[in-house]
Amino acid sequence: MAVQTVASTSTPTVDLGPAAALSCRECGHRVPLGPVFACEECFGPLEIAYDFSAYDTEELRRRIEAGPANIWRYAPLLPVPADVADKPNINPGWTKLVKADNLARELGVTGGLFVKDDSGNPTHSFKDRVVAQALEAARAFGFTTLSCSSTGNLAGAVGAAAARAGFRSCVFIPHDLEQGKVVMAAVYGGELVGIEGNYDDVNRFCSELIGDPAGEGWGFVNVNLRPYYAEGSKTLAYEICEQLGWRLPDQIVIPIASGSQLTKIDKGLQELIKLGLVEDRPYKIFGAQAEGCSPVSTAFKAGHDVVRPQKPNTIAKSLAIGNPADGPYVLDIARRTGGAVEDVTDEQVVDAIKLLARTEGIFAETAGGVTVGVTRKLIENGVLDPSLTTVVLNTGDGLKTLDAVAGTGLTATIRPTLDSFREAGLA
Amino acid sequence: MAVQTVASTSTPTVDLGPAAALSCRECGHRVPLGPVFACEECFGPLEIAYDFSAYDTEELRRRIEAGPANIWRYAPLLPVPADVADKPNINPGWTKLVKADNLARELGVTGGLFVKDDSGNPTHSFKDRVVAQALEAARAFGFTTLSCSSTGNLAGAVGAAAARAGFRSCVFIPHDLEQGKVVMAAVYGGELVGIEGNYDDVNRFCSELIGDPAGEGWGFVNVNLRPYYAEGSKTLAYEICEQLGWRLPDQIVIPIASGSQLTKIDKGLQELIKLGLVEDRPYKIFGAQAEGCSPVSTAFKAGHDVVRPQKPNTIAKSLAIGNPADGPYVLDIARRTGGAVEDVTDEQVVDAIKLLARTEGIFAETAGGVTVGVTRKLIENGVLDPSLTTVVLNTGDGLKTLDAVAGTGLTATIRPTLDSFREAGLA
Repeated sequence: MAVQTVASTSTPTVDLGPAAALSCRECGHRVPLGPVFACEECFGPLEIAYDFSAYDTEELRRRIEAGPANIWRYAPLLPVPADVADKPNINPGWTKLVKADNLARELGVTGGLFVKDDSGNPTHSFKDRVVAQALEAARAFGFTTLSCSSTGNLAGAVGAAAARAGFRSCVFIPHDLEQGKVVMAAVYGGELVGIEGNYDDVNRFCSELIGDPAGEGWGFVNVNLRPYYAEGSKTLAYEICEQLGWRLPDQIVIPIASGSQLTKIDKGLQELIKLGLVEDRPYKIFGAQAEGCSPVSTAFKAGHDVVRPQKPNTIAKSLAIGNPADGPYVLDIARRTGGAVEDVTDEQVVDAIKLLARTEGIFAETAGGVTVGVTRKLIENGVLDPSLTTVVLNTGDGLKTLDAVAGTGLTATIRPTLDSFREAGLA
Repeated sequence: MAVQTVASTSTPTVDLGPAAALSCRECGHRVPLGPVFACEECFGPLEIAYDFSAYDTEELRRRIEAGPANIWRYAPLLPVPADVADKPNINPGWTKLVKADNLARELGVTGGLFVKDDSGNPTHSFKDRVVAQALEAARAFGFTTLSCSSTGNLAGAVGAAAARAGFRSCVFIPHDLEQGKVVMAAVYGGELVGIEGNYDDVNRFCSELIGDPAGEGWGFVNVNLRPYYAEGSKTLAYEICEQLGWRLPDQIVIPIASGSQLTKIDKGLQELIKLGLVEDRPYKIFGAQAEGCSPVSTAFKAGHDVVRPQKPNTIAKSLAIGNPADGPYVLDIARRTGGAVEDVTDEQVVDAIKLLARTEGIFAETAGGVTVGVTRKLIENGVLDPSLTTVVLNTGDGLKTLDAVAGTGLTATIRPTLDSFREAGLA
């Protein structure tokens, strides 16, 4: 992948609120805010460095609580301008934190079990949170096209956000994607380009396009806008704590695809502690994968610091990243906080989707089946403490992965008569 | 359909908050609160009569504004106990009122155009609002099974609400429903019974079951619990006005299936006026149907007071009620407020779904295509005034009616090379 340096593209006057610079996660080298994602010194990932020094804790808390019922209530902590809520965007976030007492009973959790249900976002996945940040960065850098490669949730999130914000969008997908997924991405009216090849070919092509003059003015949300995009996951941490009454959960179970979401939730929790918005006390972070794509879980169990790539083979397609960029950071965080990384089989994923639907009326996508299934497994194995407050993430919507539960069907078939009804034992 | 009288089933001590009695919409005859839906005197429809006499306007407003971000903020105006928010339910409502400036520009609306987007509800349709009321009535009357007949949104809403509340659920559907719709209803783990017959057979069977001892303890949300169920639609009126800053919209476009939703939104607006929560000024209510099921629109245009049944044939299946029970009341309201009832073709429905997605990033189900399409037609015909504040309802989610836009697809197919990209004119 071509690494862009900052010189040609940075805009010193860019207003992204408290975002002060980009900083390399590996070597700490700082560069001005710009559409770059890799360190020019060491090729490490760049992330946002903030200046929060002017904030008074209680004033900040009041400002957040008086804010809109979406992620922009946290604008003071995000790489966005202060007036972001007035700009046209799809306003994701502030999704329900559901107290899951029925599920808790089934799993034996006594300390309080909560499901953070991100299926309530506008396009019904957590991707709306991250795309919303990328969109603001694209505005700030003067981009006119919003783009990504995707086989699912991200395509819809980019299409919808671009439509509302008046951006051109261009989403790249493998040309032979299932018709249903094509429709979900195409309905927003942007360019939807099928690439003759597999998902790896699509990604390789996108990387070429970013390095080429043909890609000028294009913001690839999870490539050249990745440092901004990734920050959107912090809002999950903020919301969970605020919804718990400005309190850290004891344990949190997070799905792992690239691992970015988990690392940014940890970053968000650390920020809340440093800002004094929550009491500083221990929390444990658990990562969840599907067995058919479990490179981080495998490394965790083997005690490795390095993640060995896998070829994905699981129904949890939104998590099927065989070579997760943030895998090593996930291992660090799970170990530092006393958490763990675990995986479940596809069969356990399906069982967990049904369990969550049956107990709480929440229809999760496969990634939600992964986190609920891993939670169950961690409790059974004595790794997750059922006497502590536990939050489980559902990051998407079952309507998008209907195939996973296609075996679910009628419990009875009867003739339209009371006799037939009684015979079936339904009375 | 067997008409139950109140004597055997009423519970004089039932606590449903401000709900004081049931009152016949036709003859005004009052009976105590109970699981009945038709007047014993004249067979007219029963609806809830409230006692709001103790409310102070400003105190009520403060109480609402301090309430939860769901329909229970309006508990003082609904047939539910005061502590409803503490009971296990799926907490629908407080969905986004989206200021649709891009759509307004395309339609030539200058007075402010808003989309009330009920795809944000837990099971992604407005049915969650009405089922939530029926559930509280079922609790109050000691029912243990929540039931309905449905071919779509209602099945999911009942399944999810029952699961979370710890009720048994039993949903009746035609046995040959498409597999995708079966899965959406079955995933919540309740009984899902296929009836060998068409939807009319299913409904006839349900009516028999209600009159039979086998149906004891069963709450059919839209039959014996219908007076409570229907009130849920009032919350759309409350939310729209509160989200507009406690102001009535000038014009509102509402889809018509049975017509119940439209009549209850009007009831909700009238209540807000009487309670002093909004200024009393004129508003116009417009009804929207698909041409393939347009009995109310046909009657409106012909100047009739009576609605002649039709055999539905439209892609807008959630509105396909050929003999709408509340049709005459809808005609009354449209005429009294200076509104209208209009219909659009299936092709116009699809165009409107795409228009809304392309301009605002909102993917509506076919019912949303009907309201947006009708809005466009009413403006073109000079019936709807584009200089006035207008609210259009989207009552469901495009993910549930993907087939309607199945023609949407790739805008280009290319090889994974920059040359191929340039040749396709995408740069």
